[in-house]
Amino acid sequence: MATTVSSVAEVCARAREASRGLARTDTATKNAALLAIAAALRERAAEILSANEHDLRAGEESGAPPAQRVVGEALLDRLRLDEQRIEGMAQAVEAVAALGDPVGEVIDGHRLANGLDVRKVRVPLGVIAVVYEARPNVTIDAAALCVKSGNAIVLRGSSTAAHSNAVLSSIAAEAAVEAGLPDGCIGLVAGGGRQELAELATQDGTIDLLIPRGGEGLKAALKEVASVPVIYAASGNCHIYVDDSADVEQAERIVLNAKTQRPGVCNAVETVLVHRRTAPAILDALLPALAEAGVTVRGDEATLQSAEGLAKVFAESDDPEIVALAQTIRDAVEPATDEDWDTEYLAMTVAVAVVDSVEQAIEHIARHGSGHSEAIVTKDTAGARAFQLGVDAACVYVNASTRFTDGGEFGMGAEIGNSTQKLHARGPIGLRELCTFKYLVEGAGHVRA
Amino acid sequence: MATTVSSVAEVCARAREASRGLARTDTATKNAALLAIAAALRERAAEILSANEHDLRAGEESGAPPAQRVVGEALLDRLRLDEQRIEGMAQAVEAVAALGDPVGEVIDGHRLANGLDVRKVRVPLGVIAVVYEARPNVTIDAAALCVKSGNAIVLRGSSTAAHSNAVLSSIAAEAAVEAGLPDGCIGLVAGGGRQELAELATQDGTIDLLIPRGGEGLKAALKEVASVPVIYAASGNCHIYVDDSADVEQAERIVLNAKTQRPGVCNAVETVLVHRRTAPAILDALLPALAEAGVTVRGDEATLQSAEGLAKVFAESDDPEIVALAQTIRDAVEPATDEDWDTEYLAMTVAVAVVDSVEQAIEHIARHGSGHSEAIVTKDTAGARAFQLGVDAACVYVNASTRFTDGGEFGMGAEIGNSTQKLHARGPIGLRELCTFKYLVEGAGHVRA
Repeated sequence: MATTVSSVAEVCARAREASRGLARTDTATKNAALLAIAAALRERAAEILSANEHDLRAGEESGAPPAQRVVGEALLDRLRLDEQRIEGMAQAVEAVAALGDPVGEVIDGHRLANGLDVRKVRVPLGVIAVVYEARPNVTIDAAALCVKSGNAIVLRGSSTAAHSNAVLSSIAAEAAVEAGLPDGCIGLVAGGGRQELAELATQDGTIDLLIPRGGEGLKAALKEVASVPVIYAASGNCHIYVDDSADVEQAERIVLNAKTQRPGVCNAVETVLVHRRTAPAILDALLPALAEAGVTVRGDEATLQSAEGLAKVFAESDDPEIVALAQTIRDAVEPATDEDWDTEYLAMTVAVAVVDSVEQAIEHIARHGSGHSEAIVTKDTAGARAFQLGVDAACVYVNASTRFTDGGEFGMGAEIGNSTQKLHARGPIGLRELCTFKYLVEGAGHVRA
Repeated sequence: MATTVSSVAEVCARAREASRGLARTDTATKNAALLAIAAALRERAAEILSANEHDLRAGEESGAPPAQRVVGEALLDRLRLDEQRIEGMAQAVEAVAALGDPVGEVIDGHRLANGLDVRKVRVPLGVIAVVYEARPNVTIDAAALCVKSGNAIVLRGSSTAAHSNAVLSSIAAEAAVEAGLPDGCIGLVAGGGRQELAELATQDGTIDLLIPRGGEGLKAALKEVASVPVIYAASGNCHIYVDDSADVEQAERIVLNAKTQRPGVCNAVETVLVHRRTAPAILDALLPALAEAGVTVRGDEATLQSAEGLAKVFAESDDPEIVALAQTIRDAVEPATDEDWDTEYLAMTVAVAVVDSVEQAIEHIARHGSGHSEAIVTKDTAGARAFQLGVDAACVYVNASTRFTDGGEFGMGAEIGNSTQKLHARGPIGLRELCTFKYLVEGAGHVRA
């Protein structure tokens, strides 16, 4: 390993110290450091691959029992680096270098009645801790975003990727410091245990923000112990409501995209709500399309009836393909239980319910949504407006797929996560969300009367 | 009492429900409700005074022991309402009605490359809980700010003001509902005990933000139990650094104002740092001025020497007034201990230290400051720039008193507190800080490729 082992408190204290210089570093120097990191990743690829090989071997040896082999394989795949993935990391760092610098942006400003000039200016948060699982590329992605936003970073990866993360973080740290950034600006906590996690999550006054990137287990563990500010990455129980005025073809295309384009992510749709007036037309188009795409549908009573009606019609066909479709639909559609409305499947399954109005749709979403991404498909301006006003979520779409909730898609260039909380950051967490602000006030000897 | 007793969870659930309608209520209706509250306060003044009388009598009967009588008197004064104070509350509500509505403001927006239109729009947080001590006017002030920002509010005052708060909150709630706001939008938790506090602070998913307005004891109690988001009001260990280029008269005026204009508040200065080159001139002017104003000075070695030098010169005067000043200075100036640099006196005491550079001043503030308000007095642009870049605080002043850190002074119209945390709200918490935002995205059937 290329790094020396330091205690959590030590790494954090060095990051705190580094953060003060980093906050004052100009954009050109930060960009030069990012380009140096990208270059160093390419130059030292052999070192990275050798460390990764070490992690992979350890992973295989401690391998999962046969029953869980698939999970084990997926984990190993996430862990695995190759020349192409290293090149991808380098290019991602170069992309961050090309983004605008959020630091120093004047967010707001005015001259007070007494002549004092007030500017609200964006500044780095200070020290950001990122806790993540498996994928070693997060080491580099997160470090690049923090460097660009003027924040020192403390990384804590999982023990399965310990060697990869150690080499990657030390390559990044060395390149950054050589390019003029303060020593300690990119730190790695050695040891992926719960003890280190708890120690990191209680560095009050040193860690300004902790961002977990991992599963529910990690989040739960942090909720137990964390006393520093944490932004929990989002879970997304996302809805698409198809209004009675919706274009059937558009509704079908949006739902298919939102469910099947990448079902395992938080902005994929999990429940489709259909206005009763348009339900027959919509479901007649949607159910066969979903079934043929391999999506399991958990339907309410009205949806089940529609499916059965369709299947009956299809079953009576002379065309064996259409008869087969009847069976495909019957196989795909199952009755929904109360639990389904609250379930984030992250899989090729979708719940479908019929509602009587946009208000009922808003009501359903208020009760079951997680505040991530919600969409309406409609031709009616009044319905669109009511939905956007009434739905309380990070992103509310009209006539578009929920899949667009993403820092890259939103033009933020990159994201370090996605927030469903309402304070500070809501939606994609990009460079600006890694910042706070301060008020700069200038006078000519002003005193308060 | 005019309210019926409801459980904490019940009050919160009603507020949650009300918040959904309130978020969609237009500005005109909210303003009409605020004016109705102001009118109702004036109309029902007798009811308010009678309830307040009840609280005051209870306060006197359970009165403090003689040794603490002064504190008891101060508490009773904070608790006491009269016609004038009620009129003040009504006017404050009218002032909030006159402020701009933060809800619906487009914070940012652009068209993505694929043609999707994205707007980042300010929306209410939802339900805000305000926990406060003694002063019954907070009931009305906080309710007015929440109504204007489209948030439902759950109030929890102290038991000493229970009758006053109950009448005030029910007057406000009745007037608001009559003016068209949703039932439950202004709720009061009956019972000022720790049990209710803990119950309120753990209403996850119902309370979007809890704001404590009270002393360190209240904050500590909340830190123990709170699982909902909390913004802790600031403590302010504020500094003024007098640079070597500073105008002596200006420095003296700013320091005197920041220390003595209202010493008990968080934006009052607690430590003055003076550049060594200018220390003799500054301290020769500042120390007599502070001493004569009744301020106790806790000085470092250099400051003590300056004070003693001054006193010696003055003591040799033929003028008895100047001789007396020597004694005043000797009485006022005491040696500082290490603790002084971290102390928020909130009193007529100030720590004074000599530093060798603006960098040393920044260093001292980084070590001891609370991130509230920091000022430099200087004629030098380079020094001003270095200080504003290098000091990490909510408000960084050049040539102005730290006393301006205030929502009213900053043109926010009113504030519900002041934050020294870096996430979400930093500095004065006004109407905008009681809001979050959502992204409204509009397409024409856009799907992700």
